[in-house]
Amino acid sequence: MAAFAPATLSGDAAAWRGASLCSVTQFTEAGLDLVLRRAEELRLLDRGAARARHAGAVLANVFYEPSTRTSCSFQAAMLRLGGSVICVAESTSSAKKGETLEDTARSLGCYADVVVLRHPEAGAAARAAGALPPGLPLLNAGDGVGEHPTQAVLDLYTLCRELSPAGAPALPPRACLKGKTVVLVGDLKHGRTVHSLAKMLAAFDVALVFVAPPELAMPAGVAAAVDAGTATRAEAPSLAAALVDADALYVTRVQKERFPDAAAYEAVRGSYVVDAQLMKTAKPSCAVLHPLPRVDEISADFDSDPRAAYFRQMRNGLFARMALLDLVL
Amino acid sequence: MAAFAPATLSGDAAAWRGASLCSVTQFTEAGLDLVLRRAEELRLLDRGAARARHAGAVLANVFYEPSTRTSCSFQAAMLRLGGSVICVAESTSSAKKGETLEDTARSLGCYADVVVLRHPEAGAAARAAGALPPGLPLLNAGDGVGEHPTQAVLDLYTLCRELSPAGAPALPPRACLKGKTVVLVGDLKHGRTVHSLAKMLAAFDVALVFVAPPELAMPAGVAAAVDAGTATRAEAPSLAAALVDADALYVTRVQKERFPDAAAYEAVRGSYVVDAQLMKTAKPSCAVLHPLPRVDEISADFDSDPRAAYFRQMRNGLFARMALLDLVL
Amino acid sequence: MAAFAPATLSGDAAAWRGASLCSVTQFTEAGLDLVLRRAEELRLLDRGAARARHAGAVLANVFYEPSTRTSCSFQAAMLRLGGSVICVAESTSSAKKGETLEDTARSLGCYADVVVLRHPEAGAAARAAGALPPGLPLLNAGDGVGEHPTQAVLDLYTLCRELSPAGAPALPPRACLKGKTVVLVGDLKHGRTVHSLAKMLAAFDVALVFVAPPELAMPAGVAAAVDAGTATRAEAPSLAAALVDADALYVTRVQKERFPDAAAYEAVRGSYVVDAQLMKTAKPSCAVLHPLPRVDEISADFDSDPRAAYFRQMRNGLFARMALLDLVL
Repeated sequence: MAAFAPATLSGDAAAWRGASLCSVTQFTEAGLDLVLRRAEELRLLDRGAARARHAGAVLANVFYEPSTRTSCSFQAAMLRLGGSVICVAESTSSAKKGETLEDTARSLGCYADVVVLRHPEAGAAARAAGALPPGLPLLNAGDGVGEHPTQAVLDLYTLCRELSPAGAPALPPRACLKGKTVVLVGDLKHGRTVHSLAKMLAAFDVALVFVAPPELAMPAGVAAAVDAGTATRAEAPSLAAALVDADALYVTRVQKERFPDAAAYEAVRGSYVVDAQLMKTAKPSCAVLHPLPRVDEISADFDSDPRAAYFRQMRNGLFARMALLDLVL
Repeated sequence: MAAFAPATLSGDAAAWRGASLCSVTQFTEAGLDLVLRRAEELRLLDRGAARARHAGAVLANVFYEPSTRTSCSFQAAMLRLGGSVICVAESTSSAKKGETLEDTARSLGCYADVVVLRHPEAGAAARAAGALPPGLPLLNAGDGVGEHPTQAVLDLYTLCRELSPAGAPALPPRACLKGKTVVLVGDLKHGRTVHSLAKMLAAFDVALVFVAPPELAMPAGVAAAVDAGTATRAEAPSLAAALVDADALYVTRVQKERFPDAAAYEAVRGSYVVDAQLMKTAKPSCAVLHPLPRVDEISADFDSDPRAAYFRQMRNGLFARMALLDLVL
Repeated sequence: MAAFAPATLSGDAAAWRGASLCSVTQFTEAGLDLVLRRAEELRLLDRGAARARHAGAVLANVFYEPSTRTSCSFQAAMLRLGGSVICVAESTSSAKKGETLEDTARSLGCYADVVVLRHPEAGAAARAAGALPPGLPLLNAGDGVGEHPTQAVLDLYTLCRELSPAGAPALPPRACLKGKTVVLVGDLKHGRTVHSLAKMLAAFDVALVFVAPPELAMPAGVAAAVDAGTATRAEAPSLAAALVDADALYVTRVQKERFPDAAAYEAVRGSYVVDAQLMKTAKPSCAVLHPLPRVDEISADFDSDPRAAYFRQMRNGLFARMALLDLVL
């Protein structure tokens, strides 16, 4: 069985067909432009036209750890493209009988036209993709501390929509990110989501500002990846300080269990909560993103503010995943 | 986020579109007539015509507690209307990560065209409905000791079909219930199903007879609601006594664990079992309903009797739920 | 409720419509020819034509014990025929509330057009089939130590395809098995799969060779069934000895827990492992089958050998199940 050779996902749609997406490093800039443009197009299609695109295609939606939101998003994306879905959960799978991930993938490849995989181990997506027959695509829906590339795409897509003029199709990332300031706040150490997003943004002319407790600072490797690109990188001592210049704010949760003791947690938690009062100090156009689910890091009193972009972000996820499925099928 | 303002579900189909159904109190009599008439119409449609009604619509079927029967009934209803279904179980949902029900609902509203919710807490359906975007309907599939309005609709629909002349469309409730006697038997204290049904029947010219052990009598609040309507209410000392005049018998289970001790249970259990022998004393047209699943409160030796309506009742549930989905979509 | 009267599944397709399949004993030879021919035809249909066959039909896929592979195979088969699927797992079913299997089946029969049942108890499929309304078919997807007839059909189908000339439709079993040698190896005592296959092959002019540790020998009853047919039966002392003449090799797993002690297991395990080295001694056309999942009884180093038929076998399962669904619907 050949190891997985990741395809370069370029601006040429032909390069996508049958390709697996395991890592954000597979995208070229033109490839990202293509997928975001496709998402915008699919958003405008009426229901019948969308369903005609992949009528009868079957998705095997394989989740070795629960993630309702990501699973539902992929299911809805496939159904809206006219396909259907077979759901496989780890708790009911043959993995319990000692089967290898490769055999499971290969078996599902006998039934399905595309596989979506969520797995707790880094590298699992590439292993499974390597076991599938050539031309049968797999999309990585998160592999442990590894990658979660479809989340990164939907985050970038949301940034582009929020930073583009209203009422027109979203501009490509290079155009709409130019000269903008994006603040990433919260647990930057453990957040797979912010790591992928920061690496993706590194290639653009954007100012990144990190705000995190010292215990939860952005890993050096991610910071280095940003420095290797054209983005600028800064750290701010507090959310309040960073917020003034922010064109977009990406919030993640600061979890109590990440701190050495309760006192250390209590000392900082209040300074990482976004609420209506705090947002009075931000720009009137500052978009607030969050990968969801949230607990209390964004107050519900901010939900009705037009800058609250997190539920729009979730809806963008539907179109981003439809675009990815559409391109690989 | 606005609180849920329950729509009045009247005889005007336009009032239903996009509306959520949380409680039987939302129905007007004309509204009930409309949904039962729609159920009769959908029953007669051929498979292709039914599927054309809502092709491509997506149902999020959210069950925070298991209920195979209700879940399958809604799934089948949506599939037969041409739609598709995303199933969400509590065990795999983000509720485990501390997300509020409102956020979960709002998230699912980003993917789905309609939400069905089963939840262990009374009032959960209204909370979730209030969090959804305007025009995105939710159907309450049971919220704890609260309501289970779609079960009440299918029970009423079954009564109407059983009490109408055979071979013709079911008459509206007012016409077919007039002058009839409906006996409710079993655990009337805890049965959400019999509470909703009794309240719904209160508005009609029907005689209600309650048969229950003293420990499991109908709550005063439900009895008062019946008395406030045009139905009459009586209690019978035994099932055998009540059965003679019954035009319909609605059976629920008497559970051992509801009694103070085993002796109290054993003393009464036999008098609440419906079997072929007992039913010899009932009218030849007396319909026997049960919300199912049953354990031993209806003997299998009665299943082949034409008066055994409980499996017809389940099939009616399919059409009642198709009608409700059809009206709100 | 009438007991289940198994239909004879003959070469006349009309005999299949609405019939339940509980046991391989229901097939006539012409019936097997019909289902394999149908599988070959469905394999050649394009996606749209296949979906037009049973558009809108609903399958209730009921698994009282987990079996991802069989469940997914049936789901994919139904979806590719244009139908849709409602999945019911034991863990969420009303069986927990004390409902009988018969009531559960009859309830599902109110929603579904066909039922697939996996159950841990032998005879469960016939009991459930007997409870369904006449004309509503059930397919047995494995009932404990009882039968697993759809696996037997796909195994036979795979043998026929592997033993027929390449590039042409598979010959009927009688034609392609004539004069061939099929070796069954591994745990022949507990394997429901090999029991059904051996009984099915008994009717043909084929040489069967059994290879198993003494503790795991083929039961006398199955051996007797083979002897009652036209197949010949032999036992070989080792896989290496049997392999030389094999036209097909059907491998099953030898499980450690079947042996009286670890030493007894270690003494034999090596001699039942198929790998690239061992297969050098087999015919260049010897097909290797396995019901999957495998653990280590077939080495991954053999996977790329053209004789490795086990993933083709899984794909054949999709078409065999499509054929069975197509015939009963």
